[in-house]
Amino acid sequence: MNAHIIAIGDEILIGQTINSNAAFVGSRLTEIQVNVKKISVVGDEIGEILAEFSEVWSKNDLIVVTGGLGPTHDDVTREAIVKFFNCQLVRNEQVLNDIKERFKRFGRSTSKINEDQSLVPDIATVIRNQFGTAPGTFIERDGKIFVSLPGVPYEMENMVENFVVPKIKQKLGTSDSITKMLTILTTGIPESTLFEKLSPIEDVLPGAKVAFLPSAQGVRIRITVTAYNEEQANDKLLKHEQKIRGIVGRYVYGKGNEELGVVVGRLLKDRGLTISIAESCTGGLISNIITNYAGSSLYFDRALVAYSNASKVEILDVSEDLIQRVGAVSEEVAGEMAAAIRSISGTDIGLGVTGIMGPGGGTTEKPIGTVFIAIADSNNTVVKRFNYGDNRLLNKERAAQSALDMVRKLILGISLEN
Amino acid sequence: MNAHIIAIGDEILIGQTINSNAAFVGSRLTEIQVNVKKISVVGDEIGEILAEFSEVWSKNDLIVVTGGLGPTHDDVTREAIVKFFNCQLVRNEQVLNDIKERFKRFGRSTSKINEDQSLVPDIATVIRNQFGTAPGTFIERDGKIFVSLPGVPYEMENMVENFVVPKIKQKLGTSDSITKMLTILTTGIPESTLFEKLSPIEDVLPGAKVAFLPSAQGVRIRITVTAYNEEQANDKLLKHEQKIRGIVGRYVYGKGNEELGVVVGRLLKDRGLTISIAESCTGGLISNIITNYAGSSLYFDRALVAYSNASKVEILDVSEDLIQRVGAVSEEVAGEMAAAIRSISGTDIGLGVTGIMGPGGGTTEKPIGTVFIAIADSNNTVVKRFNYGDNRLLNKERAAQSALDMVRKLILGISLEN
Repeated sequence: MNAHIIAIGDEILIGQTINSNAAFVGSRLTEIQVNVKKISVVGDEIGEILAEFSEVWSKNDLIVVTGGLGPTHDDVTREAIVKFFNCQLVRNEQVLNDIKERFKRFGRSTSKINEDQSLVPDIATVIRNQFGTAPGTFIERDGKIFVSLPGVPYEMENMVENFVVPKIKQKLGTSDSITKMLTILTTGIPESTLFEKLSPIEDVLPGAKVAFLPSAQGVRIRITVTAYNEEQANDKLLKHEQKIRGIVGRYVYGKGNEELGVVVGRLLKDRGLTISIAESCTGGLISNIITNYAGSSLYFDRALVAYSNASKVEILDVSEDLIQRVGAVSEEVAGEMAAAIRSISGTDIGLGVTGIMGPGGGTTEKPIGTVFIAIADSNNTVVKRFNYGDNRLLNKERAAQSALDMVRKLILGISLEN
Repeated sequence: MNAHIIAIGDEILIGQTINSNAAFVGSRLTEIQVNVKKISVVGDEIGEILAEFSEVWSKNDLIVVTGGLGPTHDDVTREAIVKFFNCQLVRNEQVLNDIKERFKRFGRSTSKINEDQSLVPDIATVIRNQFGTAPGTFIERDGKIFVSLPGVPYEMENMVENFVVPKIKQKLGTSDSITKMLTILTTGIPESTLFEKLSPIEDVLPGAKVAFLPSAQGVRIRITVTAYNEEQANDKLLKHEQKIRGIVGRYVYGKGNEELGVVVGRLLKDRGLTISIAESCTGGLISNIITNYAGSSLYFDRALVAYSNASKVEILDVSEDLIQRVGAVSEEVAGEMAAAIRSISGTDIGLGVTGIMGPGGGTTEKPIGTVFIAIADSNNTVVKRFNYGDNRLLNKERAAQSALDMVRKLILGISLEN
């Protein structure tokens, strides 16, 4: 089944909104063996939308449209659907009721523009909206499927998970060949080094299609295999994974969409370990990542975002003299921060992070992008120096990733040396 | 000038990477009066890429392509360009030198796959890469412009800012009509309420094209006007802005792409105020946002991410008895957190945030999404209760936004009541 995803909205064309919806839809369709051939974005202009519908209709089996279903005048997707399929709008009482109930819950009454969101194309199966007012629609015509979903991400995501994916899976039935992907996540090794270590790729991973995808979090290795069935595909992927781990295993922190924060959280939880953090230059990012996951209160005790020198001295008892002598951005201060937060909090592990994120503050000896990360446990405090680049936000992300990777390595007994 | 943006990469189609590059290019082109008509995404397959080049070439004046320029085998954009324009690859010595210098800086030597990135189409003007190895290319043919840029965001962004935008601006010269946009940023008011307050929109903002864009940060109002020149356009936009501020001004925190964290940072800096934060359920997100901006050390002293009750008791001196009696998620505890962090840090303002982000931990009285945010200054401590939804990450984002908005309102003397 070939699919095309269309996102509608001037806000995407002019760059006010990033098209994260297409990524979500693309990943869910790929998981159920739908081949996403193309993604396009068109503006809130009915002529443009109709032209796009016509262009993609003949080339695909499935079209998923997101956006343009809001209650205000600038949303025209529903009108385009009515014109494209030459159908009528009818009031859907269940949707009307959903909308009224929703407003009631928030102690408000509906207005006409909200109520009119219950008008749906008569040829469509309605997809109810659990988190908002605009319903989705599912249309089958000429052996093809056309799905329209709201642009608000969590409303759309819910409909994809609970309606679109199960429905399409059921239509697809079983097939005689299967394509499956596995993404191996690495951090702390550059793309070209990774590529060379795994070269020649055709010999190291025979029969696989391999892609290398660099980002601030590290390099992802995506492996695609084709097989007769799921079991055989899994078997092939497992062999490739083992091969990669055999060569660059210490840099591998996870698979698929896993985030390092999840991996580290699981390691802490499984080993019954706790952590506390003293972060300066990362400004709360490491704690933020750790607390993005439900259940983090089991292993995360506290963090001090010690931005001012005073906060380092007062709460962490770093000596003012030391800061004067070696600077707040130093191996020594990072080490004291890690040890102090660990001891104050009574956790198993303490992290200390101090650095210069830019754009100002660099020196010849410690240029922008210099970060010291320390990790303390009951045995030892290890401090590592990292040299990132000039971009403040990237430096924060990279330092957070490096810090979490040090926790991973410490727990797994992997050497912290490069 | 009509433009089409093409992003190349299987990782975007299958949803592993969100197409933030197109948003960046779209916003920069829009700023210089280029009309972005469409965005598309195609996979790493040379046939598909060539078909897309052909399709968009005839319909547009400018084509910007991102991605597919990496050193590994899965990157085929350069090959597609050579085939499409029927040109040759030639070695560019300056690019080769850039690549070698880059590797030298990191203490590494280049390999053949890196050096081969200096092979560029002979008909192209090379765009040097300050942050990576793949050069961009700028091609002019048949009165049209074709630009190819690497997919790594900061490498691409730098080339757009410093080469593509100035070059296209120069080509465009001056025109006899101008379209200009202004986005007004609101928070704390639902989309339909905002729309109703500004209705009928044709009378309230005559002659403007208006769009409402909701997100976790609030609702953006985008106004587009057409005028004879820049001055007249600015004048129209200013009048519309004043009209909007006159009706819903207390919800307006900024304009354009401004983030609330920047707005609050500027207010703190301009008034010479300092802030400290005790955040529990937001887990460091508020501090992370505040420290995303250079110069935040001028007004941000420290944050305690007080996840465990012990950390609230030990560092903030919240009484254990109070937590037992009213719960850690309560008006009282939020208030004590704000006042305590302010007093410990000696800052002008203290924020205290405690809540239930989900998916677990809700009760009938305090369901998931219940958050108490307190703000303390030398006069007073004000606590507000918020009720968000079921999504943990959205709840964190909304709470951070609400907290920052309370700081904005406090500084500007806007009532904290709804």
